[in-house]
Amino acid sequence: MPAWFWLVPVASVVALGAAYGFFREMMKESEGTETMARIAAHVRAGAIAYLKQQYKVVGTVLVSLTLIFCVVAYVFHMQNPWVPFAFLTGGMFSGLAGFIGMRTATYASARTANAARRSLNAGLRVAFRSGAVMGLTVVGLGLLDISIWFFVLTHFYGTNDAHQVVVITTTMLTFGMGAAVQSLFARVGGGIFTKAADVGADLVGKIEAGIPEDDPRNPATIADNVGDNVGDVAGMGADLYESYVGVILASAALGAAAYASSGATIQLKAVIAPMVIGALGTLLSVVGVFFVRTGEKATQKQLLGALGRGVNGAAVMIAVASIFVMRAMGLENMWGLWLALLAGLLTGIAIGQAAEYFTSQGYAPTQRIAAATKTGPATVIIGGLGEGMMSVAIPVMAVVTGIGLAYFFGSGFSFGTDTLSLGLYGIGMAAVGMLSTLGITLATDAYGPIADNAGGNAEMSGLDPEVRRRTDALDSLGNTTAATGKGFAIGSAALTGIALMASYLEEVKIGIQHILDRGLGYTFPDHFHLASTATDQLQSLNLMQMMTHYEVVLINPKVIIGMFTGAMLAFVFSGITMKAVGRAAGQMVDEVRRQFREMPGIMAGTQDPDYARCVAISTKAAQREMMLPSILAIAAPVVMGFIFGVPGVLGLLAGAAAAGFSLSMFMANAGGAWDNAKKYIEEGHHGGKGSESHKAAVIGDTVGDPFKDTAGPGLNILVKLMAMEAIVVAGVTVAISLV
Amino acid sequence: MPAWFWLVPVASVVALGAAYGFFREMMKESEGTETMARIAAHVRAGAIAYLKQQYKVVGTVLVSLTLIFCVVAYVFHMQNPWVPFAFLTGGMFSGLAGFIGMRTATYASARTANAARRSLNAGLRVAFRSGAVMGLTVVGLGLLDISIWFFVLTHFYGTNDAHQVVVITTTMLTFGMGAAVQSLFARVGGGIFTKAADVGADLVGKIEAGIPEDDPRNPATIADNVGDNVGDVAGMGADLYESYVGVILASAALGAAAYASSGATIQLKAVIAPMVIGALGTLLSVVGVFFVRTGEKATQKQLLGALGRGVNGAAVMIAVASIFVMRAMGLENMWGLWLALLAGLLTGIAIGQAAEYFTSQGYAPTQRIAAATKTGPATVIIGGLGEGMMSVAIPVMAVVTGIGLAYFFGSGFSFGTDTLSLGLYGIGMAAVGMLSTLGITLATDAYGPIADNAGGNAEMSGLDPEVRRRTDALDSLGNTTAATGKGFAIGSAALTGIALMASYLEEVKIGIQHILDRGLGYTFPDHFHLASTATDQLQSLNLMQMMTHYEVVLINPKVIIGMFTGAMLAFVFSGITMKAVGRAAGQMVDEVRRQFREMPGIMAGTQDPDYARCVAISTKAAQREMMLPSILAIAAPVVMGFIFGVPGVLGLLAGAAAAGFSLSMFMANAGGAWDNAKKYIEEGHHGGKGSESHKAAVIGDTVGDPFKDTAGPGLNILVKLMAMEAIVVAGVTVAISLV
Repeated sequence: MPAWFWLVPVASVVALGAAYGFFREMMKESEGTETMARIAAHVRAGAIAYLKQQYKVVGTVLVSLTLIFCVVAYVFHMQNPWVPFAFLTGGMFSGLAGFIGMRTATYASARTANAARRSLNAGLRVAFRSGAVMGLTVVGLGLLDISIWFFVLTHFYGTNDAHQVVVITTTMLTFGMGAAVQSLFARVGGGIFTKAADVGADLVGKIEAGIPEDDPRNPATIADNVGDNVGDVAGMGADLYESYVGVILASAALGAAAYASSGATIQLKAVIAPMVIGALGTLLSVVGVFFVRTGEKATQKQLLGALGRGVNGAAVMIAVASIFVMRAMGLENMWGLWLALLAGLLTGIAIGQAAEYFTSQGYAPTQRIAAATKTGPATVIIGGLGEGMMSVAIPVMAVVTGIGLAYFFGSGFSFGTDTLSLGLYGIGMAAVGMLSTLGITLATDAYGPIADNAGGNAEMSGLDPEVRRRTDALDSLGNTTAATGKGFAIGSAALTGIALMASYLEEVKIGIQHILDRGLGYTFPDHFHLASTATDQLQSLNLMQMMTHYEVVLINPKVIIGMFTGAMLAFVFSGITMKAVGRAAGQMVDEVRRQFREMPGIMAGTQDPDYARCVAISTKAAQREMMLPSILAIAAPVVMGFIFGVPGVLGLLAGAAAAGFSLSMFMANAGGAWDNAKKYIEEGHHGGKGSESHKAAVIGDTVGDPFKDTAGPGLNILVKLMAMEAIVVAGVTVAISLV
Repeated sequence: MPAWFWLVPVASVVALGAAYGFFREMMKESEGTETMARIAAHVRAGAIAYLKQQYKVVGTVLVSLTLIFCVVAYVFHMQNPWVPFAFLTGGMFSGLAGFIGMRTATYASARTANAARRSLNAGLRVAFRSGAVMGLTVVGLGLLDISIWFFVLTHFYGTNDAHQVVVITTTMLTFGMGAAVQSLFARVGGGIFTKAADVGADLVGKIEAGIPEDDPRNPATIADNVGDNVGDVAGMGADLYESYVGVILASAALGAAAYASSGATIQLKAVIAPMVIGALGTLLSVVGVFFVRTGEKATQKQLLGALGRGVNGAAVMIAVASIFVMRAMGLENMWGLWLALLAGLLTGIAIGQAAEYFTSQGYAPTQRIAAATKTGPATVIIGGLGEGMMSVAIPVMAVVTGIGLAYFFGSGFSFGTDTLSLGLYGIGMAAVGMLSTLGITLATDAYGPIADNAGGNAEMSGLDPEVRRRTDALDSLGNTTAATGKGFAIGSAALTGIALMASYLEEVKIGIQHILDRGLGYTFPDHFHLASTATDQLQSLNLMQMMTHYEVVLINPKVIIGMFTGAMLAFVFSGITMKAVGRAAGQMVDEVRRQFREMPGIMAGTQDPDYARCVAISTKAAQREMMLPSILAIAAPVVMGFIFGVPGVLGLLAGAAAAGFSLSMFMANAGGAWDNAKKYIEEGHHGGKGSESHKAAVIGDTVGDPFKDTAGPGLNILVKLMAMEAIVVAGVTVAISLV
């Protein structure tokens, strides 16, 4: 084991230690008045109740799938025997990260509001460091999982046989699928929960009853705040946990394949490089957290600058430090890989900047949507849809440029396909570069809902207007970081998807070999021309030959069928989640109306609404509505593989990734722009609060809610989960595909 | 020349003759009262004014591109010398078809209204037969263009050399690009025109001034009616003209390639088979027109049944008659090709049925959207977006099933890729099957705007309520046929796109050969390993080998970059057109408000509004807003080809087709459902006209307008134009691509 590997567990321990430190620091703060503590307790209880329910469901799914994988691996011998365990730990670690992050967030909201009574900087500090608990827990647990499995597998198989290293890294990839299943429930279920509550609360509260947002008389308010925690904290955490481990492991697997014939030392270095860069990024993210501070009279711009200092500071440090680390490691094509890494880092920043431009009220697109309110809600919607669709251009251009450059650098400054594996490793390295700042990027993301909840807490507790002004400033900042965070999550999902597609073919090879090795006398379907293929023949195929062998060429009808189906699934998955939010919000509206009707004391302020019942409705709806999208996402690659084999599956993944990236970016940006167009009007433009323009803007915002927080982020999960699953079932697919 | 070929010019003459007959018949009807004739004259003048302006712009573009193609072909010898002329005739014939159809429609509206004074059946008959003029002109001119060019080229080159036949058919394909450019302006420009007028008229008229639709006091009313003619008649006609000739020629080219080594007789039969089937379908479409009649007290269902009898009758006749024709022609694999044809016919019907289910108020999805009006416009929009996204599932499943079956049947009942060319020919045959009923399908499409205008004319002329009830019934029927027609246009565009992708590789071969033959001493870029490729080496490559040679495998980063870019372009193109409608509608609103303000006599009914000015605004806006999407669509395949060569271009086409199909289906169905949800409420559900529910539904309808009539259909054009253009510039692309 190269010495540099040990940086990975060390970084993991440092990150988890720092997270614990920040958690202790936050817990020392007071929760403020009794009302504040009581409200926070309500939210916390609701969040825990939801998470308990979700873990029950997801636990059942994880255990069932593990049992199926056990049967496939041990009874039919069609699968790598480590898969069931890797799968299970991935799911568990991802769940743990979400749980810790969400617990922290629910403890932090009242404390942030209370610190904001002292000063703006104190509020920022509590909220951001609580967010950092989440960010560092995700990367810390990710690196821990990677360290343990890599240690165990390399000790079991040894690292001298180049082929075994490929098997080790590809096996590790399968724990990504556990994380993907977990994140499906966390992100999509959480998204349905939060938007059902949010939309329901807005429709009755703001529009019908005319009471402000976060008014304690609204029975759905607590559910709305709970939603921020389960959707935007726990869901986002699980989503990015999966991207993080997925990218590092896919790059390791690509490195193992690319340098398989370069000798054990060089190959092993290529394998651990993504892990080491991840570890380095984690350590520097911890340093970056300390850069985030601001003066008392800070403007919105200065607040944004404070967060930017943390993230960009970490990015610059990673860019510089990785030169020394990569040199010291003595990597092959070190400068090429470093440039690929840099391309990834810059792509991430470009996507974030584009998201900010298209969703922030400081720029033309959002202001145009705000101006469209003058001709009513229809033009607001048309404008938002139009701007959202246009906004896709820059992120896609950034990502394809990043892919092109990373390939060029990674393959030693060439665009030829004779260095395909090296180029793909370069793309993997770019994805690692993009996600290397995750520790701190995720801190700014998780900061958003904490500040949002702090504002809610301040409003409901009737704190001083000056405090409310401060929490509003912190919250508004959170909206912008949420948009850039979403762009980042989508962009990294696209790169992860591509890296996983390449790893898929490696896993196909291993799957076939596994069956051939067993000598089961199993006859492969004739259409794969594999009946007579021996293990070493298979081993000698490179990626290009694999694709030709499997006819994964663009005009193969199986590939075309896969692509059209993949693109369609992105739309259908989004449609299902949009409709789910609509349905659940309708139930919430009915419940709130019922409470207002049957409990007249609520509006008079003499009676507490039944918050728990609203939480229960969202919880139940989220679980029920998760059924269909889960089945769809889990079944699609299996069914496609069974019918159309490898070309069908790769077409499916490519179609879903290409269409899903644009669709999800469109929905995230349109939603963000509508949200901020409303805020822009509330700042006093076009007639301000209460005007007809404001009403039109509220409608846009409500439409945008499920767009940006349920359907949009849900697509990341769909793309990654299908790719992960394809890898896990690769062996089976090849063995029994029909045509 | 095989005798069967002569069926093609015969069918063309019959179709054009029948169209002329129906036109004369319609012109014999009276235009009714003086007011009716005056209003019709207003609309006609506006439509002609717009078309004149459009043809000026499109003429400039066509001539400029022709000149460029001349330079490329005659100075640089990088292109087939027939291309400039083929390109030009395609553009001219497509423009002519749109012009004739639109002229007819503007003559027919008052006559339909007047005939409806007599009886419902008379109204249906005039409107439908006028629509048939359009349908039969499109297929008649298409077959004429094909006949002439095929006759000229086969006499020039002869048909004994299999390779020359491939060159002939691929050359003919290039006139599809002329048609594509024409349809870009007709469909997208017309779409912007019509929806700017429609949305503008609705926003001020219905929502602000509270006057009904088609009220003569609304200055934008005439522009709205003009828009129906230029967008839904001329635009739809140009769109489907392109699909029709594109599909027949792509199939002919695929047939030439698939049977290149089977001898001249068999090859030539395969080439003319798609033309003969097209001719057969045209003749039977003429017969089908006579099936459309109804009783006086006809319900909506019976009216729909009357149209269905025409379309389905033609389809059944084609299915049966083609057995005999294909047998008599003595085609190779006759039963397989017939089954492929049948698969295409059925796919078209399935798509139409699905569109009807998802957009008609008789079914659950639209009723759910109508029910969502109870919680306001936001839930209407969320519901419509959700239902629209879900609605993508069935059409995509239908198309991929159709592709799979057609491939299986076409390649002689196999799924292997050793028969790739045969299978692709089968897919082409399926596309021909789907479009074989175009003569009559397009008649039902063009019928819609004619009935719509008749209703407008009746309203503005203050005809008897009973007459208005009859034109309303005819109009409402038109909404359903419009939705199925759109589904049909989108589905056929997808199949056309796939067929063109395969033809692209043939054209690449020819392009290279052309340059090699010239012996210019031109050195190909090294990355294509072509520097030493001789003509016969190239000739011997089949499609699979071409794809391997050009590395058009799915994980080639060039392909991935192309795919992501293609999917992105679908979104950006839609965004641009959505925003264009928003902007132009805003101008229209300002103008209508100005007229109401400055000319108080309008609302009092003592003064005529300035209709012409509104027409001028829409005309100008449509031309101006066309700039950006045109440049994008024309530049994209060229730029992608120059940078990333053949793999980049094929990735681009595949990404655009896969994402574009779903996106366009989503927008068409969501828009149709919103439109009919409004109609459902107007029929008296959820509070009926004037209720809060109705207001919410009007907002949904307004959002749906540019969705279903501008952005949605615009994507068909984008997908087909980019594919056509890729074929035209294939030689140049290969010669000078960079990496």
